[in-house]
Amino acid sequence: MKKNLTLKQIAKELDVSISTVSKALKNSDEISEATRQKIQAFAKLYNYKPNNIALSLKNRKTKTIAVIIPEIVHDFFAMVISGIENLANQYGYNVLICLSNESYEREVINMEMLASGSIDGFVISLSKETQAKKDYHHIKEIINQGMPVVMFDRVTREVYTDKVIIDDVLATQEAIQYFISKGRKKIGFITTPDYISVGRLRTEGYKRTLEANGIEVDENLILRIEDESKMDTMIEEFFDKNKFDAVMAVNELYAVNVLKTALRRGFKIPEDLHLIAFTDGVISKNSIPSISTVKQNAFKMGEIAARLLIQKLESENEHEHYITEVVGTELLHRETTTI
Amino acid sequence: MKKNLTLKQIAKELDVSISTVSKALKNSDEISEATRQKIQAFAKLYNYKPNNIALSLKNRKTKTIAVIIPEIVHDFFAMVISGIENLANQYGYNVLICLSNESYEREVINMEMLASGSIDGFVISLSKETQAKKDYHHIKEIINQGMPVVMFDRVTREVYTDKVIIDDVLATQEAIQYFISKGRKKIGFITTPDYISVGRLRTEGYKRTLEANGIEVDENLILRIEDESKMDTMIEEFFDKNKFDAVMAVNELYAVNVLKTALRRGFKIPEDLHLIAFTDGVISKNSIPSISTVKQNAFKMGEIAARLLIQKLESENEHEHYITEVVGTELLHRETTTI
Repeated sequence: MKKNLTLKQIAKELDVSISTVSKALKNSDEISEATRQKIQAFAKLYNYKPNNIALSLKNRKTKTIAVIIPEIVHDFFAMVISGIENLANQYGYNVLICLSNESYEREVINMEMLASGSIDGFVISLSKETQAKKDYHHIKEIINQGMPVVMFDRVTREVYTDKVIIDDVLATQEAIQYFISKGRKKIGFITTPDYISVGRLRTEGYKRTLEANGIEVDENLILRIEDESKMDTMIEEFFDKNKFDAVMAVNELYAVNVLKTALRRGFKIPEDLHLIAFTDGVISKNSIPSISTVKQNAFKMGEIAARLLIQKLESENEHEHYITEVVGTELLHRETTTI
Repeated sequence: MKKNLTLKQIAKELDVSISTVSKALKNSDEISEATRQKIQAFAKLYNYKPNNIALSLKNRKTKTIAVIIPEIVHDFFAMVISGIENLANQYGYNVLICLSNESYEREVINMEMLASGSIDGFVISLSKETQAKKDYHHIKEIINQGMPVVMFDRVTREVYTDKVIIDDVLATQEAIQYFISKGRKKIGFITTPDYISVGRLRTEGYKRTLEANGIEVDENLILRIEDESKMDTMIEEFFDKNKFDAVMAVNELYAVNVLKTALRRGFKIPEDLHLIAFTDGVISKNSIPSISTVKQNAFKMGEIAARLLIQKLESENEHEHYITEVVGTELLHRETTTI
């Protein structure tokens, strides 16, 4: 069974990361000479064979695509998957889903496992840890070997491939500008750490809009939530320390917690506090009062991602030509804003 | 490529269902002689080979398990998956997820695709349509060929295999008995059509508890929702036609819609109306007021299902011995009940 040795097993055996093994086998100078030699010798000894995707691609049509997402607790990813399924099934493709659970290692393991034979291509949204590490080696490798990859939502400029995104800066600008048009001045912003691409872009949109309106950015009014299990306390403290007349949150889970905190403190919604969230999912729709959202058209994003992938798979053309599709967003007013 | 002919292609070509093809190839007398002959002749002509799972099983350890679930919009399934992932990853297994989208055909296609090479075993919760058709042929076939399958939540007695369930009757009895202990008399029950196993069992628990307490069952107080897109109107009409002082719903999405309808009609919660839901997910936790639930321990269900499957995969013992694990439930009081 020597030929079945995987990157993961080599990494475990030599007590280094999977990424180190992968880079060492490509002779990358990011890895020290000594480590490279050790890893290469080990791989040779055990007859390690990288998955020769390119070789087998021509002979193989599994008619199956894989979707790698960070998690499914947030409704956004569930809706993207519905869109992918819908389009893929129309074209006779099956869909496999794998969760990275926000872990770089699981993302790498899942992609390696799937690329070695069961699927034709990937649709992926990056894990938090991958974005923090900025290590996209595993994805570049798969693309280099000839297997198409489409990225959505959490993407990176460092990988050259088809992408589907929304204009996160613009969508945030619209919402913040709306608050300002309603005379709101103390606008809070609840987001993710900056290493998550969409969180960083939305924070940028928030700051830009304030500046464009001559309002000074107060860093105290920005709350970055890293660990969702601490969200409740963080939002309580955020309200202890500041006075708000409007809040925007980068997802609906943060938003509903803002709503609960505000109601508990006697805020009248929307009179005393305006609230807008990203993600038009079951929470914003069903909360009482229902939450106004930036409609990200997640279902459509999924459909476009699947269409881009299937076009690549069925195209005779070998020419490399990548596009980034920007899906339009719109502000959906419910009960936490006044129209 | 003749050997790659699938059941699906034969079905499409001959304009019959996948299930008919599968049965005809097994020479089942459920299928007419004429149809059987036609299908068998076609399969022979195109050299159809069923996936010989059993033959290759001994030589293959993909260390990957597949989870087939009806959908991921309901938080229950998302939480089960977290449990499966957690345990499987501890044992070095990867997890693939496929959605049946409540369709029998997609369930069959996904299982056929996966069983033919990419995985070691299945964890499955049946689609609505499969339960309505009562056709479990595709699952029995996989088990007969030697690949282990663990069923959870939506299971059937007709397939002999490992299962993980809650005691749906008992869990409902506890909740309804609780309403009665608080003096509630007009208890509404919102459930699924009876062909869905868990909906049927919960309805049974509802009726039994009323009868045990000498309360006559009024069928008007039971609402069965088939199509979730019509849920809003159905719940409105349910409230138009009846007066309630308590409602139980078989999932949190139904429950939050009851809550909205009741609040709109001026009910004070919990004084005028008690409400308990199955599924302790993001909706019940985050709604305002928060919804009291039957805690199904979905994460634990997932862990147990994965453990049963991995035990089977790693056991040397060929002896067939199946168990059904019943996961305990508990009533979690939040703001829609009084303690």
